[in-house]
Amino acid sequence: MHPIGHYQQIVSDYFTSASIIKEPKNLYEPISYILSLGGKRIRPVLTLMAAEVFNANCREALPAAVAVEIFHNFSLVHDDIMDDAPLRRGHKTVHEKWDLNTGILSGDAMLILAYQYFESYEPPIFKELAKLFSKTALEVCEGQQWDVDFESRSDVTQPEYLKMIEYKTAVLLGAAMKMGGIVAKTSENNCNLIYNFGLNLGIAFQLQDDYLDAFGDPETSGKQVGGDIIENKKTYLYLKALEQGSAGDKELLLEYFEVQPEESATKIAAVKQLFTATGADTATKNAIEAYTLKAFATLEEMDIEPEKKEVLRKFGENLMQRTV
Amino acid sequence: MHPIGHYQQIVSDYFTSASIIKEPKNLYEPISYILSLGGKRIRPVLTLMAAEVFNANCREALPAAVAVEIFHNFSLVHDDIMDDAPLRRGHKTVHEKWDLNTGILSGDAMLILAYQYFESYEPPIFKELAKLFSKTALEVCEGQQWDVDFESRSDVTQPEYLKMIEYKTAVLLGAAMKMGGIVAKTSENNCNLIYNFGLNLGIAFQLQDDYLDAFGDPETSGKQVGGDIIENKKTYLYLKALEQGSAGDKELLLEYFEVQPEESATKIAAVKQLFTATGADTATKNAIEAYTLKAFATLEEMDIEPEKKEVLRKFGENLMQRTV
Repeated sequence: MHPIGHYQQIVSDYFTSASIIKEPKNLYEPISYILSLGGKRIRPVLTLMAAEVFNANCREALPAAVAVEIFHNFSLVHDDIMDDAPLRRGHKTVHEKWDLNTGILSGDAMLILAYQYFESYEPPIFKELAKLFSKTALEVCEGQQWDVDFESRSDVTQPEYLKMIEYKTAVLLGAAMKMGGIVAKTSENNCNLIYNFGLNLGIAFQLQDDYLDAFGDPETSGKQVGGDIIENKKTYLYLKALEQGSAGDKELLLEYFEVQPEESATKIAAVKQLFTATGADTATKNAIEAYTLKAFATLEEMDIEPEKKEVLRKFGENLMQRTV
Repeated sequence: MHPIGHYQQIVSDYFTSASIIKEPKNLYEPISYILSLGGKRIRPVLTLMAAEVFNANCREALPAAVAVEIFHNFSLVHDDIMDDAPLRRGHKTVHEKWDLNTGILSGDAMLILAYQYFESYEPPIFKELAKLFSKTALEVCEGQQWDVDFESRSDVTQPEYLKMIEYKTAVLLGAAMKMGGIVAKTSENNCNLIYNFGLNLGIAFQLQDDYLDAFGDPETSGKQVGGDIIENKKTYLYLKALEQGSAGDKELLLEYFEVQPEESATKIAAVKQLFTATGADTATKNAIEAYTLKAFATLEEMDIEPEKKEVLRKFGENLMQRTV
């Protein structure tokens, strides 16, 4: 096994060297653009790492890893249109730099390109990968739809919210790892365990995103504190505060989430105060820990060398100890 | 072999009985809606027919046929957004009936669903189908991009135009037929021949669409005559007229294609007159015939019973003798 940086380098080298610029330029340039913006490349790294955990050479898993990263970027291009987001990773989004039609069509092409990367595997592996990929991709669409639906609903429950983040975010992390297992031809049991490892870590990761949005350090994250509060997003913190708060807390919180004042500092401070007073902050921290432990519990059952388990645990701990 | 109506019935029965309504409703209802609008179902019929031409039971090819039809409808949903089209088959387009985001996301889900239909085949067939599908789907995206690009270009050549309609329309007809061949496990040579049969017939079909848009009978087609002329579309008729016309014809045509008068009847009559005077109408008819004959020539080489060749030829003749 190698340090994470090794896998990141392989992925980053791939996207630097691989040029998918061909005609028509207006279709392929936006694809090359979004893929060049980088990011943490966490999903393809998971695929490469999982392949080595199950004793394959990580390079064998590179096409699958690339497919996962291209799919992730496809979903960003289309989501950015739906959210009308102007910026992605500090650069213009595709539909802003080009236009709506380019965003739609380049995104479509990326989804197809992702499938093509699996073609370097022999038929049985190809089918297993493509099947897992389709199932996952459809769940990501469903998760995105739930997220859109929740914006205009006032009766979202915690289980619904957890299902939404599971589909929108966590399943792709689980699938990314399972693909490494499939390429390494490990047992079905190991494949399912690593999927659950990635899935639960993914849920924990997303809940931590919610938590850090309100309680993170803007210095280290570079993000504005309280973005979710400004946008009245029904996060886990919010749903927990509604559940655990007094009638007064609840009324106050609902009122705050019906307005979008231009001067947001007062609202952010007040809502954070409610999150703390209702114990929603502690409840969220507890949920993060519970999902992290659930991920780690799958390691116990995994049929791999103890050192490999240690690598996965360390990776999970590093991921969850981030303060950004 | 059966009459075409038999295959159409199988496809139509499938889409009537198969309910893909599940949660979240806002994702799956638009899919069900667009698939229920019908249409001629020509692509899935081609898949079923090709399977029987190569001695398989056409029902074996149904999942592949359904995948092709779902993909075709995916492309309609996204193209309708790009063209800002309010109507499709006499009903509201998805983005009009719902909204832009629903159109994008439901379309994405349809593209993934199409791939899932191939999962009912064993790994080697699955891989062959999915590979052909991805290649074709990407070409359809490229064709759509060329079409968008051509709108703002004044130097489009005939070879470029032919390439555009080949990618945007014809490759899917070729692939639909080849899929029937793949499912029937016929020889690679037969697979490639039936692909070229569908491809060339597809090009002829699209050129005929161009021709009928100007010279078709509005009574039988139910379409407004001259839609392409109103929208200044650079069709084969237009490009041929520019090539074959006198300097005066050319200048006049270019002038007409720089304006969009509210009262279009005069412009349509004048442009049609130019299409006839320059011989562009005859040239287009000749091209249609040439591509049709090219399709029929592949039948000579195909290793199938003479009666099967006759069925394919009859189908091609019927398709091209349409006046609508």
